[in-house]
Amino acid sequence: MTATTDARQGTTRTPAPRVALSSTADPRVDVAALTEQLLGQYAELRRGARAVAGEPDFQKIEGLPMPEQRERVLHQLRELVAHHDVLRAFPSRLGGADDHGGSLARFEELVAGDPSLQIKAGVQWGLFASAILHLGTAFHHDTFLPDAMSVAVPGAFAMTEAGHGSDVAAIGTTAEYDPATQEFVIHTPFRAAWKDYLGNAGLHGTAAVVFAQLVTAPAGAQRVNHGVHAFYVPIRDAATGEFLPGVGGEDDGLKGGLNGIDNGRLHFDHVRVPRTHLLNRYGDVAPDGTYSSSIASPGRRFFTMLGTLVQGRVSLDGAAANASKLALGIAVRYGNERRQFAGAGPDEVVLLDYQRHQRRLLPLLAETYATTFAHEELLAAFDEVFSGRGETPEGREDLETLAATLKPTSTWLAMRTIQECREACGGAGYLAENRLVGLHQDLDVYVTFEGDNTVLYQLVGKRLLTDYAKALRSGGAGDVARYVADKAVHRTPLVRAAQTLADVGDARRSAGQLRDEDTQRELLTERVEVMVADLAAALRPAAKLPPAEAASLVNSHQHELIEAARAHAERVQWEALTRGVHAATDPGTQQVLTWLRDLFGLTLVERHLAWYLVNGRLSAGRARTVSSYIDRLLVRLRPHAQDLVDAFGYGPEHLRAPIASGQEAQRQDEARAYYRAERAAGREAVPEKHVR
Amino acid sequence: MTATTDARQGTTRTPAPRVALSSTADPRVDVAALTEQLLGQYAELRRGARAVAGEPDFQKIEGLPMPEQRERVLHQLRELVAHHDVLRAFPSRLGGADDHGGSLARFEELVAGDPSLQIKAGVQWGLFASAILHLGTAFHHDTFLPDAMSVAVPGAFAMTEAGHGSDVAAIGTTAEYDPATQEFVIHTPFRAAWKDYLGNAGLHGTAAVVFAQLVTAPAGAQRVNHGVHAFYVPIRDAATGEFLPGVGGEDDGLKGGLNGIDNGRLHFDHVRVPRTHLLNRYGDVAPDGTYSSSIASPGRRFFTMLGTLVQGRVSLDGAAANASKLALGIAVRYGNERRQFAGAGPDEVVLLDYQRHQRRLLPLLAETYATTFAHEELLAAFDEVFSGRGETPEGREDLETLAATLKPTSTWLAMRTIQECREACGGAGYLAENRLVGLHQDLDVYVTFEGDNTVLYQLVGKRLLTDYAKALRSGGAGDVARYVADKAVHRTPLVRAAQTLADVGDARRSAGQLRDEDTQRELLTERVEVMVADLAAALRPAAKLPPAEAASLVNSHQHELIEAARAHAERVQWEALTRGVHAATDPGTQQVLTWLRDLFGLTLVERHLAWYLVNGRLSAGRARTVSSYIDRLLVRLRPHAQDLVDAFGYGPEHLRAPIASGQEAQRQDEARAYYRAERAAGREAVPEKHVR
Repeated sequence: MTATTDARQGTTRTPAPRVALSSTADPRVDVAALTEQLLGQYAELRRGARAVAGEPDFQKIEGLPMPEQRERVLHQLRELVAHHDVLRAFPSRLGGADDHGGSLARFEELVAGDPSLQIKAGVQWGLFASAILHLGTAFHHDTFLPDAMSVAVPGAFAMTEAGHGSDVAAIGTTAEYDPATQEFVIHTPFRAAWKDYLGNAGLHGTAAVVFAQLVTAPAGAQRVNHGVHAFYVPIRDAATGEFLPGVGGEDDGLKGGLNGIDNGRLHFDHVRVPRTHLLNRYGDVAPDGTYSSSIASPGRRFFTMLGTLVQGRVSLDGAAANASKLALGIAVRYGNERRQFAGAGPDEVVLLDYQRHQRRLLPLLAETYATTFAHEELLAAFDEVFSGRGETPEGREDLETLAATLKPTSTWLAMRTIQECREACGGAGYLAENRLVGLHQDLDVYVTFEGDNTVLYQLVGKRLLTDYAKALRSGGAGDVARYVADKAVHRTPLVRAAQTLADVGDARRSAGQLRDEDTQRELLTERVEVMVADLAAALRPAAKLPPAEAASLVNSHQHELIEAARAHAERVQWEALTRGVHAATDPGTQQVLTWLRDLFGLTLVERHLAWYLVNGRLSAGRARTVSSYIDRLLVRLRPHAQDLVDAFGYGPEHLRAPIASGQEAQRQDEARAYYRAERAAGREAVPEKHVR
Repeated sequence: MTATTDARQGTTRTPAPRVALSSTADPRVDVAALTEQLLGQYAELRRGARAVAGEPDFQKIEGLPMPEQRERVLHQLRELVAHHDVLRAFPSRLGGADDHGGSLARFEELVAGDPSLQIKAGVQWGLFASAILHLGTAFHHDTFLPDAMSVAVPGAFAMTEAGHGSDVAAIGTTAEYDPATQEFVIHTPFRAAWKDYLGNAGLHGTAAVVFAQLVTAPAGAQRVNHGVHAFYVPIRDAATGEFLPGVGGEDDGLKGGLNGIDNGRLHFDHVRVPRTHLLNRYGDVAPDGTYSSSIASPGRRFFTMLGTLVQGRVSLDGAAANASKLALGIAVRYGNERRQFAGAGPDEVVLLDYQRHQRRLLPLLAETYATTFAHEELLAAFDEVFSGRGETPEGREDLETLAATLKPTSTWLAMRTIQECREACGGAGYLAENRLVGLHQDLDVYVTFEGDNTVLYQLVGKRLLTDYAKALRSGGAGDVARYVADKAVHRTPLVRAAQTLADVGDARRSAGQLRDEDTQRELLTERVEVMVADLAAALRPAAKLPPAEAASLVNSHQHELIEAARAHAERVQWEALTRGVHAATDPGTQQVLTWLRDLFGLTLVERHLAWYLVNGRLSAGRARTVSSYIDRLLVRLRPHAQDLVDAFGYGPEHLRAPIASGQEAQRQDEARAYYRAERAAGREAVPEKHVR
């Protein structure tokens, strides 16, 4: 372990005393190189952002009363503008860098300082300013963007309503055009149409981008609802903090976490804004009230407008991966030092030497690696589309599907990981000073905001069905796995599924080594294919049924639809991790990463083992070996667990948990030294059982 | 639904407008009768405690700063003594009622007011005063109990140390007897031996029951360590709040939840207490330093002392069940009112009509019923032992095993349930006002304190192995399921497992109806049996191996050991739920409960489906039907979901969540009325897609 240790000490910020490992392992992880690989395409930007997150001024103070926490985070936001490079996503001509991917990479790293700061930044720049940028045109960029960028105008993104969250198309707020004054009248017709859960709305926001049903009636024509559009609406007097006439609202008050953000409610009583406040990139209203749009279909227009906001999901995916890394950094270090119960030797047993403790943490570590590599690919796809390099309707759609695939997967992983880490640290894990409970509280809402995870998986499932139908129609040329960013590896047309279904008990496959890359790929891929094909077959009659019965049939397969999306997500992550393994250049690192990838793959197979058995993909005999393979992988990986979390590159200024500071090992050394000295001096009392 | 509605309105505190249900269902739940059944053997006491928890003075205020929350909870504790019947567990001669089971039932209900209050009460009366009661003798009862009961002396239960939590036997604090002064010297030899995580130690406690290694050396003899004993130690000056000489400590500060409790650390620098401060029921020291005990074996003595504290685990089991009920009460009500996305009809679809939403919540509802019935049996077993009616060594051991079986199961269920409910309520679920996040924060530590869940399952697993070995030795007369409180139903000797293992593909069984009670029982029971038998076979070589290799072999099966315990726990819960079904007298209620039991049983079978397939207990064909059976049960149970949560008997004063108040339905009615009026008045704008 010496070389590894040296490498790590040279490159990470954790010069803590090394802990004894339970066994010697031949391959060694090149921690420095792996850190670099994990930092990915935006390594320099990430390092810069981590330096910021490592400064006490940008870190969460647990237990700060909500009002103070809010002020602190607003202040931090402004400090970021003044002293740090946080406006990269905006146009160069306004002081930005037109760097979309790099900008997100930076913000994802703020989660190590304070998730509230990450999300407050997301509200201000990722939602409010981004809506101006992406839904507005030159006038809006010139007029509103500078103050939004500088936080001179803190802004709310007023889309969600009390009555409509996931179903944005059905919001109740209206923006009716009045040609007489050339104004839009923003109005909240009933309580359920109050905007809700909006960051910056509770206290700080002086403007909002308000989403409303655009209604207009050019001279003499009928009043037409052109669907949801966005409007720039001042809401508070910046000097007094009072709501402007016609605007009202409420503070959402205390939340489960993220209390550095002032979420709140807004409502509008016939509030008038100039015609030019319509963010008119995708739809405009002429002075006489005539509506025009470059996108003829109202449905496609709506989804195009919403699609510009995909970056929220992309950055949550990255931030969730980082939160998992922090939690594992804390729990693995503690698990490597904490001892409990006597073992066979003279010392008590280190927690991470217990098989169960390995079972609890190492598969989550493998999943976190998979999530990290998958996120880098998502970020690349995002940058390709948003830079304009790869901006095609298909590219956008694929990006949105990939974001909808990964955001639920990584945010749920973060919740599972943080909670398991908290429990794995026992009572110490429940103390706020050890960070895990705070991370759980703050990350919790990531699974339901910016697209409820369950709803997102349904979108993915529907896309899988659509692609499958296309593939069937085109006679197999299509590929449901198209958007997997699946460049180097095999592509299995979904139409094959019909055959493979009958292909029960394929001897080659069931005898294949489960640790073999191709076998894992085939198992994971086939599962998606068969699930989608089964689902398509089950839903086929819906086309010929009356609406109510069709809806009922579809609903009766909703669970399967979501599980198909999850299976797809798992496969996407597995492919990304596998590409990460191949990209590792150091042989020792590649060996350990291969074990980690196998652990991830086999954990997925174990999780869905019944499916493989029922569908004849694995024999009972082969299935029996899955868990024992996993057990063997745990033993192999265990000596590398610390290296694998050290490679995340977080230092003590990011972990900030006393239990991950070396304190635990130090105290135990002290205790053992005490007993040794007592024994040496003959002062030790004899245990009763040795007397009688 | 009318009759059911009437019954409910007559008996619960929720006279909110009824929501439309998705289908008509024939059987009806007699909500009043089911509420009574669920309230169980201590119905009156529970009702009394719920009345207390329903008073604002005994309810948690979310967001209260920690110092105020602590003062509030201490005040509440004293109010409980002054005005309510909370000292039932104590001796009649001291003002109690010698009612052990009833006392716990009361405290479990306080969780609806504030989990901090439940746990502060648990610290004061369930740990501190109980240790005096159960480990002390008449002198201690007379001297220390009255002030502990009245909270004149708030006390800490100083067992856990920074370095030793689960492994209490290895604590470092010493209590050395000094015959010269007839005192014990309480001493903390090193940092890892600081007491930690102790409620009342941070601020309020003026005394503590301190666990320490008792060392004594009667004249001329060697110094002997008689193991862990408990001592009554004053720690703070009640007037000044300052630590007494030699005592020191720290506040644990903010925690993930339960911040109404002042957890803290204590250490002792040669603090002297009189000899009589040893709580000497199980071990005593004579003035000359001679040690004596009624229990010869130091190991058995230690476990006997710890065993007296089982009530903590029992009451956490009940409180966790109640927390799950509260969360489901909120999420089911909201799921029954909240609508999102248009359906086939004119209205948007109610969340609970979505199959996935049913899949998320109804199995948790079934598990919560199982947990509730199982807890009632645990409480009965507890009362039998602690009242003395059934106090035998075997009865105590069975009680401890049952508590170790159920406490992990119910506390983990609470965490899953609260989190799923929070997510099922979306953004609204993240607001503190809707209670779910607060419940999660407070209940979190229940899974690791009073016996870490993972450690408890290991105890259960070891007990299963011991009983299996006994059964084997006695030629089949034993029964591993003995302590299941499994009176009326069949008992399967574990020795049968060897045969059943070979019994692959039994046609009768695989063709059996999965909804059949005996089939479910057989599936669940056989799984435990086979897992234990497999484990025993795998561990058999350990007896002949050198210690290190033996330990390594045992460790390599730790995961299976824990999973066997979980399987046992699931079966215990299933049996309890089944007995609950049989005890229901109303036919409609019994029908619905039978479906709920089937849902629970089949969900367990689905969760472990791979095991049943690999072990030949279910054919692939039969396995395929498990999920579709579950889907059908969800459809059947869905119309009864509201009745089933209403039967928990919690009113709005317990749920206290705006989203579960009828507000949501009211707002939606208002929105629909608005659109109706617009249409009627011809004011509705035409959707663009209808124009072009």
